[in-house]
Amino acid sequence: MSDFRIPGITVYRLALYARVLENFLSEGKELVSSEELARACGVNSAQLRKDLSYFGQFGVRGVGYSVPALLKHIRRILGTDREWPMVLAGVGHLGLALLNYDLLPQRGFKFVAAFDVDEKKIGRVINDVYVYSIEQLPWVLKEHPVEIGVIATPAKAAQEVADLFIAQGIKGILNFAPVRLKHPKNVVVEHSDITLLFDKLAFYLRRLD
Amino acid sequence: MSDFRIPGITVYRLALYARVLENFLSEGKELVSSEELARACGVNSAQLRKDLSYFGQFGVRGVGYSVPALLKHIRRILGTDREWPMVLAGVGHLGLALLNYDLLPQRGFKFVAAFDVDEKKIGRVINDVYVYSIEQLPWVLKEHPVEIGVIATPAKAAQEVADLFIAQGIKGILNFAPVRLKHPKNVVVEHSDITLLFDKLAFYLRRLD
Repeated sequence: MSDFRIPGITVYRLALYARVLENFLSEGKELVSSEELARACGVNSAQLRKDLSYFGQFGVRGVGYSVPALLKHIRRILGTDREWPMVLAGVGHLGLALLNYDLLPQRGFKFVAAFDVDEKKIGRVINDVYVYSIEQLPWVLKEHPVEIGVIATPAKAAQEVADLFIAQGIKGILNFAPVRLKHPKNVVVEHSDITLLFDKLAFYLRRLD
Repeated sequence: MSDFRIPGITVYRLALYARVLENFLSEGKELVSSEELARACGVNSAQLRKDLSYFGQFGVRGVGYSVPALLKHIRRILGTDREWPMVLAGVGHLGLALLNYDLLPQRGFKFVAAFDVDEKKIGRVINDVYVYSIEQLPWVLKEHPVEIGVIATPAKAAQEVADLFIAQGIKGILNFAPVRLKHPKNVVVEHSDITLLFDKLAFYLRRLD
């Protein structure tokens, strides 16, 4: 439980380091300095070294980091060295995009069932995932317990879905609906807000002139 | 140009602070301490104060920050105190989700045109946005110049679209395709990778047990 003190933004950066290391690895790069890795991630190298120092000692002074070893280590820290089966609620445009996003299963995050309230969607199979009625959620989760539930419903339905997920033992929720969810302390909720990226773009754009 | 030295992650946090301040404002909250704001944002308060110190002096010691004044100031820093017209390339599931995401125009980010290569999509109007053939892109951008282009195409089409955007004077690109784009230094490219959020969720989930 002590790792709960690690700030969310540090964990986000660890995930970012993993992505950049994956790119380096696919380019055949074996060694990287903290300066180079930091630059590719858009952080400063002191920050990078501090983030990694939370989890022990990495790298060799003057030599840098072994790309595959550091990647393996970060994946173990993140918990992405295993498979995470998931369920999805809400098969709208975003839900369809998520079900069809092949990078997720490639990284171990695999949808095993989807749910909707729309009769026209129930019974469809999208990228090998069956769409159930939301009423079947307790039964499906009892038969196929998973730890992660993803919410891609309209805002007004999100809390009800979260309550259903939590009642069926789901411990981690990724919420794409633009609403803050109430949840017990032993459930982890991450909220996705893509408008943050547009803000960031505006910041740098305004400074181009 | 000097603000280019501000790390991307700091800008991301500024956007996050703006969101949380918006929530506080909608709840009628007028004053907030740096500790409370930091906690709501998932950062530590020293980090928050350091981020804000890049842009001058805020708040009154022992009293805290005025929520509306700090929000207004951060919006001015971010450049989200104005409208940003945008175009979209790729009207697939994710593109449709973006065109229908009403929080974007509410925050000043408004699509004025969309582009696709699929005959079945060209000529459709989605949430008041017309879908043009990608071949019409130079003409549309000449008639309606915008600064931001959003890429929601498959990975293999993303670089070609980015080149078209840049040739027509677009200065900021938000790329949802899972590929790193080549671009000149006077063009800002932000890359969206939602798999980072799943990684973050996995990290905290594994530490629940």
